Amino acid sequence: MNEPVFVIPLWADLIAVGLGGIQGALFASGFRGDRRLDFLGVAIIGIVVGMGGGLIRDLLLNVTPTTLQSNWYLLTATGAALVGMLLAGVFQRVNAVILGLDALVIGMFGAFGTSKALVVGLPPVPAIFVGVCAAVGGGILRDVIMGLPVAIMHVGSLYAVAAGVGCLVLAATHALGVDIVVASIIGIVVTTVIRLLAVIFDISLPEQRALYRRKVAVETTAIPIIKP
Amino acid sequence: MNEPVFVIPLWADLIAVGLGGIQGALFASGFRGDRRLDFLGVAIIGIVVGMGGGLIRDLLLNVTPTTLQSNWYLLTATGAALVGMLLAGVFQRVNAVILGLDALVIGMFGAFGTSKALVVGLPPVPAIFVGVCAAVGGGILRDVIMGLPVAIMHVGSLYAVAAGVGCLVLAATHALGVDIVVASIIGIVVTTVIRLLAVIFDISLPEQRALYRRKVAVETTAIPIIKP
Amino acid sequence: MNEPVFVIPLWADLIAVGLGGIQGALFASGFRGDRRLDFLGVAIIGIVVGMGGGLIRDLLLNVTPTTLQSNWYLLTATGAALVGMLLAGVFQRVNAVILGLDALVIGMFGAFGTSKALVVGLPPVPAIFVGVCAAVGGGILRDVIMGLPVAIMHVGSLYAVAAGVGCLVLAATHALGVDIVVASIIGIVVTTVIRLLAVIFDISLPEQRALYRRKVAVETTAIPIIKP
Repeated sequence: MNEPVFVIPLWADLIAVGLGGIQGALFASGFRGDRRLDFLGVAIIGIVVGMGGGLIRDLLLNVTPTTLQSNWYLLTATGAALVGMLLAGVFQRVNAVILGLDALVIGMFGAFGTSKALVVGLPPVPAIFVGVCAAVGGGILRDVIMGLPVAIMHVGSLYAVAAGVGCLVLAATHALGVDIVVASIIGIVVTTVIRLLAVIFDISLPEQRALYRRKVAVETTAIPIIKP
Repeated sequence: MNEPVFVIPLWADLIAVGLGGIQGALFASGFRGDRRLDFLGVAIIGIVVGMGGGLIRDLLLNVTPTTLQSNWYLLTATGAALVGMLLAGVFQRVNAVILGLDALVIGMFGAFGTSKALVVGLPPVPAIFVGVCAAVGGGILRDVIMGLPVAIMHVGSLYAVAAGVGCLVLAATHALGVDIVVASIIGIVVTTVIRLLAVIFDISLPEQRALYRRKVAVETTAIPIIKP
Repeated sequence: MNEPVFVIPLWADLIAVGLGGIQGALFASGFRGDRRLDFLGVAIIGIVVGMGGGLIRDLLLNVTPTTLQSNWYLLTATGAALVGMLLAGVFQRVNAVILGLDALVIGMFGAFGTSKALVVGLPPVPAIFVGVCAAVGGGILRDVIMGLPVAIMHVGSLYAVAAGVGCLVLAATHALGVDIVVASIIGIVVTTVIRLLAVIFDISLPEQRALYRRKVAVETTAIPIIKP
């Protein structure tokens, strides 16, 4: 399967990878005690967050990973992780920087994922799915490798929703005839804004609920209730 | 690598995905306290369980994931997860439904995995392996994403064994000249029955044992004994 | 993407898979109590450690996994895991055997990964990355599936560094015109020696540090400090 001329310019891709690398390093450098990471661990997390989204996207599309076709991706992700690590003290005082960075990175990975999937010929629903996986995949890999609870699975995130709405808007505007580059920019903006608003106003999804009384149901079920 | 005309009809594939989605949602809705999931989390688990097996199969075969070639897979998995969530109270009273559903899903994913692998040209042993990975892969992904111990790794499961025997019977009957569709149906029945018998009669594999006294060996080893 | 005539002979590949399988089984058989594994669990870990590196390599390169093209890989990994399990009592007394085996396995997977990536046409930096992923990937999968902290992420490993330096030397000597087979052997030796020296002399990387006082930075950050 050879993809035709594709739309993501190298510089845009490298910006996403670099921002992801910085974000990953900032995250990783917040750990102490038994979970503290050495230089290498921080670099690995930077690479995972910076490159994970693109790798997952290309695995799902069954195309050769773009991030491995050039030396620049790994050099950018590693360099960004080192910068992030050294400047962690500064950035962590400016919490808004971390959150803004994170929102932008999700938006970019999501938009690149969905637009590449559309160009490769996927129908809109799986194209949106690929975008969401690309947006949140780096974070999931990061959490799994660090042995943390996967952030997007727990109440209060709106993380994947922000990515999903941005990718949906991208696919919809593109279906309406808007150029894929313009549609991608719209998608990035939508995701970033939703994510930032969700953080600022502390919005979260309602907890799941069933049509029947849960207390009784749970007490009679054989499915184990796992306690941490 | 282009696969030739392949045998799994869309409706059969969608049934497996839908049953997987319901099963995933029932599982996810059993969680409380710190581990409770929001709507989105339950939908994600439904998608992971419903589509994970097919994705892992196609990644291992290096073919473009079938589940991303049509809008129906994601819509089915998501819809099934929502149904499963809303009806969790009902289904959980009927524990046999959950277990039966689970056994059937393992059987279908295993049979589809092995038959697709055989059609694509893999030798029998890796074809059986792909089937087992497809059968248990969704559950492994689910456990990893939810931060649970991976169920198939611990004493008392017989989960992977049921899948393995079904896939083995499928590959063997196909090698003997039986049509792949008939062989697949036999494989599904074998896996489902073994799994149900294992649950009903509480069968498990013997614990591992070494040729030498373990107590002494363990006390003199440098391999860390991890305590939970 | 069809790879041209490739360099890894089957016997060399099977030796790496078999040693990985033994190493995985020795590791898995060290567990007791709630984490004890049954026969199947030990076999799974053997397969994961023995075949995980090759699978990850081929997924990243987007080529059909070599380990699934022949019956021998799975038979070797499973057989090696059973041998490892039965002889665990003997091997665990000779701790040096486990460590030496492990160092050799990392070296082989790393060298096979980087050399295959170079033959397939990747630039040197991603080729080294693929080698490191192949070398440490099996161990990461093992830890994730067993619910353990991922070993390479924590202070004191030098695991990935050993693999990285070996793969770097391989890529550099190959770039200087050395035959890929010779370069691979050099790479294996370099990785194995570094890993063994790191264990013998208990070398580790310095902990990460920032340019600014960390204590203050941490206290003012909003990034959660996770406690185990």
